Amino acid sequence: MSYVVGVDAGGTGSRALAVDLDGFRLGRGASGGANPNSHPYDVAAARIAEAITLAIRDLDPAECKACVVGMAGSSKLTDPEVAAVFHDTWSTLGLGCEIRVITDQEAAFASMTSEPSGTILVAGTGSIASRIENHRMARVVGGIGWLLGDEGSAYWMGREAVRAVLRLLETHVPDGPLAQAVLIEAIGTVGDDHQLLWQRLITAANAEQPIRLARFAPFVSAAYTSGDPVAVDIVTRTVDVLAGMVADTRSPGEQSPVVLIGSVVGPESPVGVLLRERLGDLPIYFSTEGATGAVWLAAVDVLGPSAPRPSELVRG
Amino acid sequence: MSYVVGVDAGGTGSRALAVDLDGFRLGRGASGGANPNSHPYDVAAARIAEAITLAIRDLDPAECKACVVGMAGSSKLTDPEVAAVFHDTWSTLGLGCEIRVITDQEAAFASMTSEPSGTILVAGTGSIASRIENHRMARVVGGIGWLLGDEGSAYWMGREAVRAVLRLLETHVPDGPLAQAVLIEAIGTVGDDHQLLWQRLITAANAEQPIRLARFAPFVSAAYTSGDPVAVDIVTRTVDVLAGMVADTRSPGEQSPVVLIGSVVGPESPVGVLLRERLGDLPIYFSTEGATGAVWLAAVDVLGPSAPRPSELVRG
Repeated sequence: MSYVVGVDAGGTGSRALAVDLDGFRLGRGASGGANPNSHPYDVAAARIAEAITLAIRDLDPAECKACVVGMAGSSKLTDPEVAAVFHDTWSTLGLGCEIRVITDQEAAFASMTSEPSGTILVAGTGSIASRIENHRMARVVGGIGWLLGDEGSAYWMGREAVRAVLRLLETHVPDGPLAQAVLIEAIGTVGDDHQLLWQRLITAANAEQPIRLARFAPFVSAAYTSGDPVAVDIVTRTVDVLAGMVADTRSPGEQSPVVLIGSVVGPESPVGVLLRERLGDLPIYFSTEGATGAVWLAAVDVLGPSAPRPSELVRG
Repeated sequence: MSYVVGVDAGGTGSRALAVDLDGFRLGRGASGGANPNSHPYDVAAARIAEAITLAIRDLDPAECKACVVGMAGSSKLTDPEVAAVFHDTWSTLGLGCEIRVITDQEAAFASMTSEPSGTILVAGTGSIASRIENHRMARVVGGIGWLLGDEGSAYWMGREAVRAVLRLLETHVPDGPLAQAVLIEAIGTVGDDHQLLWQRLITAANAEQPIRLARFAPFVSAAYTSGDPVAVDIVTRTVDVLAGMVADTRSPGEQSPVVLIGSVVGPESPVGVLLRERLGDLPIYFSTEGATGAVWLAAVDVLGPSAPRPSELVRG
């Protein structure tokens, strides 16, 4: 039986999905993180192979007609030496097709819509928006990492939270819920000497890896819900930044879909709720599973753009 | 003969100055960096002691009536264990007085004016503004380090330069002088593939210590001079930020002095020139030598606020 495979290979885990040419699910597989920026290339390649092997457990590898891997950090494979490691590992699978690597964002966009073009916005620990045209990433906005940017990300929200608390500490010990939560998380006390707290908060923030500032972002969402004006300000500015990134990927008035991914823009988070309002009547989706996009794009490789969407249903 | 000693103890060097009670110079000494945040405490203490020893070479230590050390990182001495290391090292000097430690900013402010109150603005690799009242730091604006802020610093200007070039690289290879200089410095080429340059610039910036972004700041000044609009924008925003920090330390209409320190606000730098214009008719000074402020404050300890200003003159 002919089938296709799609993989979502991220920094913390990899998931593979096999479907037949009608979109019925044949198998699933999971393995560890496979972002070649944060894992050794051979480990990343082996994990993707493992997820595929588990997904096609009872199937003939030779009957796989297309396989698409959506990979975080896929630009690493522009290096021929890196690409060779992946190719060599994957050739042992014996698939009846080449494995095509795309970005995780292309896979996530396709996971929610069959439209060829639109916007994908990632706002998790980092942030990036991409223009998708004909299923391919055509233009990137942001995505430059925490040191140079990542505005609107959890890193950035956490950093803004610490900055806001430091500004308050210039003159007094703040008693709002965000400031209290940040101080307890960072230094375990809210104390009573604002200058000492100011110094200790700076020291605590700098003692950790910079990206760990993202741990303060959930406090912003929680304090927003209780009406803390400092949190309201940060949430409002986060929505401004992310809406601006989306707009920068689009023509005015364009009605193509917007696909969102990441903890910051989830359907329950304050930023997610407000961003959806801001984007108005556009088709907006929240993606949690890139593998369904990758497997549909694999089906398109075989059947063309009318390929059926993958289903959770198992035939029979 | 009675005399006083002042020391400017910074991250890269320490300078000591001895003057008699009429302000005539008796001796100078220099040693290595002595910021206790970046050097072992015993090394920092020994370097300050060495600079003092060199400055008072032919003098009787017991005749030293006051000694003030302006120290970058002086807040470390609020830790009794750290203070004990400094005290023990310095007690071997046999001075006829205790050594009084103040901040480098208090020393720099006093180096340029006998006024008891005003503003000191540091804009070098980092940035901080302080309200000085009765020669003491009364309030701080900024000074929270590169990870959380340091707006208006060389670090921040360099980061803004890289960010601006990355924005241009989203669509084309920029040919302005700032972009060309940043690309040559970061990756050694201006290339012709804007997406590849974008990726390589991000990688190059992240491959170095974050604070090394400050190395791009001088390119902003140079490109400003040749009219590059990207550089003009960064310089304008830097002046806005620094003028705002100064204003945050002052009452409206206050005419007390403003003392500037650091490469970003030097009298020849574009930011320095524009900031002086922005600050209008306030008394504005540029400090390069904190030791003269420390030694004058030492003289004030002995003679009160009418103590003569230290002079470059040697008696006789």
